[in-house]
Amino acid sequence: MEDRSALSHYRDDGSAHMVDVSAKESTTRTAVAEGRFVTRPDVVDQITDGRLPKGEALATARIAGVLAAKQTPTLIPLCHPLPLSKIEIDLLPETDTVVIRATVRTTAPTGVEMEAMTAVSVAGLTLYDMVKAVDRAASIEGIRVISKQGGTHDWEAGDA
Amino acid sequence: MEDRSALSHYRDDGSAHMVDVSAKESTTRTAVAEGRFVTRPDVVDQITDGRLPKGEALATARIAGVLAAKQTPTLIPLCHPLPLSKIEIDLLPETDTVVIRATVRTTAPTGVEMEAMTAVSVAGLTLYDMVKAVDRAASIEGIRVISKQGGTHDWEAGDA
Amino acid sequence: MEDRSALSHYRDDGSAHMVDVSAKESTTRTAVAEGRFVTRPDVVDQITDGRLPKGEALATARIAGVLAAKQTPTLIPLCHPLPLSKIEIDLLPETDTVVIRATVRTTAPTGVEMEAMTAVSVAGLTLYDMVKAVDRAASIEGIRVISKQGGTHDWEAGDA
Amino acid sequence: MEDRSALSHYRDDGSAHMVDVSAKESTTRTAVAEGRFVTRPDVVDQITDGRLPKGEALATARIAGVLAAKQTPTLIPLCHPLPLSKIEIDLLPETDTVVIRATVRTTAPTGVEMEAMTAVSVAGLTLYDMVKAVDRAASIEGIRVISKQGGTHDWEAGDA
Amino acid sequence: MEDRSALSHYRDDGSAHMVDVSAKESTTRTAVAEGRFVTRPDVVDQITDGRLPKGEALATARIAGVLAAKQTPTLIPLCHPLPLSKIEIDLLPETDTVVIRATVRTTAPTGVEMEAMTAVSVAGLTLYDMVKAVDRAASIEGIRVISKQGGTHDWEAGDA
Amino acid sequence: MEDRSALSHYRDDGSAHMVDVSAKESTTRTAVAEGRFVTRPDVVDQITDGRLPKGEALATARIAGVLAAKQTPTLIPLCHPLPLSKIEIDLLPETDTVVIRATVRTTAPTGVEMEAMTAVSVAGLTLYDMVKAVDRAASIEGIRVISKQGGTHDWEAGDA
Repeated sequence: MEDRSALSHYRDDGSAHMVDVSAKESTTRTAVAEGRFVTRPDVVDQITDGRLPKGEALATARIAGVLAAKQTPTLIPLCHPLPLSKIEIDLLPETDTVVIRATVRTTAPTGVEMEAMTAVSVAGLTLYDMVKAVDRAASIEGIRVISKQGGTHDWEAGDA
Repeated sequence: MEDRSALSHYRDDGSAHMVDVSAKESTTRTAVAEGRFVTRPDVVDQITDGRLPKGEALATARIAGVLAAKQTPTLIPLCHPLPLSKIEIDLLPETDTVVIRATVRTTAPTGVEMEAMTAVSVAGLTLYDMVKAVDRAASIEGIRVISKQGGTHDWEAGDA
Repeated sequence: MEDRSALSHYRDDGSAHMVDVSAKESTTRTAVAEGRFVTRPDVVDQITDGRLPKGEALATARIAGVLAAKQTPTLIPLCHPLPLSKIEIDLLPETDTVVIRATVRTTAPTGVEMEAMTAVSVAGLTLYDMVKAVDRAASIEGIRVISKQGGTHDWEAGDA
Repeated sequence: MEDRSALSHYRDDGSAHMVDVSAKESTTRTAVAEGRFVTRPDVVDQITDGRLPKGEALATARIAGVLAAKQTPTLIPLCHPLPLSKIEIDLLPETDTVVIRATVRTTAPTGVEMEAMTAVSVAGLTLYDMVKAVDRAASIEGIRVISKQGGTHDWEAGDA
Repeated sequence: MEDRSALSHYRDDGSAHMVDVSAKESTTRTAVAEGRFVTRPDVVDQITDGRLPKGEALATARIAGVLAAKQTPTLIPLCHPLPLSKIEIDLLPETDTVVIRATVRTTAPTGVEMEAMTAVSVAGLTLYDMVKAVDRAASIEGIRVISKQGGTHDWEAGDA
Repeated sequence: MEDRSALSHYRDDGSAHMVDVSAKESTTRTAVAEGRFVTRPDVVDQITDGRLPKGEALATARIAGVLAAKQTPTLIPLCHPLPLSKIEIDLLPETDTVVIRATVRTTAPTGVEMEAMTAVSVAGLTLYDMVKAVDRAASIEGIRVISKQGGTHDWEAGDA
């Protein structure tokens, strides 16, 4: 854990800034984030391939997630703008749920957890946009980082 | 429920489009969405006011949410660009949680559920960005619409 | 023809500005634009459905076109920002060509030809991005307005 | 030709992703793209310098093209965000045509063909926006890559 | 003066929000803002037309200002997104100064002072970008609103 | 002074381009810019902490400035897109003024003066947006570069 004693992004007086990473080494870093889009089983069926010959529903969510990963530094105020070398969005249908998983990679002095989290969120929002006329009560659950590799140490969900 | 038989945004052949709302009446519409940022109690304490004299952590999340609401149509592919007349983000700290609530209003031919959902998501992502160095396992839960008013009918979470 | 004697967008001294449309009536206006993505027959086959079970190639181009239509006023300097009520992108595969057609509608004091042209262009660029590893010599041809309806008069390609 | 057997950007199951370039070497890469804006001779005369003392018509198109090159990764879904070290737009008037040529350079693990193509397209769209009141039938033709240098091999239009 | 007792945009508890304008009437509103770019006389000469046959320096600043006006709601957190019906940037060279004036118009429930101020600022920043290699000490002075018309009352600089 | 004889960004024929920096060395570079938001003493009191328990007024301006620094290459047409490693905005209240200072750092082949200037400008515009209902005559003064470090030489305001 880099620092348990204080929030990053804030100076001693509590004011927000984008922290200096110029002294950190540029290395290859990967982050995986996940979330769940929860709706009704019949809606999952429609999203996936039941009634849609071209299957563009999942594609739309995937493309939205990829584009959002690239917009992370303009959405999340204190995030560093980074070159991204890979973005992959997996959409895994289950009974009443679509699991959304994003994998993002960079070669940079800081990690890409926020890019992966943002991709998951926007893919989930796009699924909601699609189904809101048939299931307004659908929700997005459990958006979180699953693992990160590279940088000072690796980390996986479940680690202390 | 406007249409339970098919996803909106998709034509008969399954291809995605931004649906025609030109024949719908322009009326005042309000949507409220909610989500929960879940972390440890000591982190909630740091976010709110425990150690940060200027309290900019919550402000940063709030501003990010307001800005994101306005970027909804460039993030969510099939959303209509709308003039927004009000955006309000409430951040309500509880023991190990910050409840995030967004209220968005427009006068337009279609509603602003997606704007409210997007504001909640990005406010939550911004909170994660702040605390990730001290609680990498934090998550965002339960992003959903709470109520909508205006348009063909009103709706509240819990309604069929 | 609104004005054949001079370019719009330029004042008498030749300087660029976004022309005043505040006195024009807000009416429903539709524009259709078209272009052709020209490649090899085997590449059209790959783009459409030959080898791609999920068919996301066309979906990716379609979504890119829809999003680009909404970004027109930040891309084309002298374009007015407008609320858009409909965006539809048709991708019609032919032997060595994918015909790209965009239909855009607004209720506003000025038309949406530029939105339709921008949607076609970016859908075409996205197709190029997809195939450039297999056909670097592919090109985008004939981006033009096919018809416009609403405003002072209607117009169709072929009219004087 | 790097790979004739399959579209890049798509995994075996046909789903779209932004391909991993983290193992590729960062080198200086240049791409040149070209297109033609086709209108009437009297309109070319007006665009260039006939009646416009400050000549801002070509400048407007050029600036739009430069800015668009920088927005390529937010427009073209599967493009990598790259640092750009040079963007140059040449606008060459001929009888009834303005030839648009964009030269873009980066030092990065992947090339900038899409940035050059996007710059040409948006410069062409901006020219159309300018002349649409006097020549609604104008079109943009032949948007394509002319040459690329750097990376695994060089390429020029006309090569197999 | 609408309210002298408290800052707008802040609720009683001091938290920021985008104020509700849904009850305000949509009327035609115009704002004019001004600023001065101050450099050396020889630099003004270069910017204007001394050594630059195509005069693109002023055009570049003008186009940047027009585009920035349209991006105001994504730059200024609590600004309402509005349809803009006119944007005009005047650049008036004086001895060691370029006066920058922006006129913006909308038909909307709130005014466009921020759009005019943003256009002036970004036009000035663009001029600085151009001259910084020859006059790093140049500055932007006096960015302010000159007049506003429409809405509850008109106002001009110099009024109480 | 790198070049006193001509504006950068313009070729011999006066046309604008984004200059080639591919041959320049990537080094750590820092720029500091400053400006002053000038209003009435009672307004400074309200902005800072007089009546606003959460103090979000300064936070809003700070966040807007940080985000704007990251949007510099899409706002200032001929600016290079760069990875930014640090952004810090100081807001220093004085009697009738808030001094705005931005510090930006990169490791890149060109400097970040424009990012620092843009951050100052947008923070100032955001302060204006906040106080315009109580002091429409407020202004932004003296936006300029204070110092730059890194690159071919260092520079400070006051140097020839």
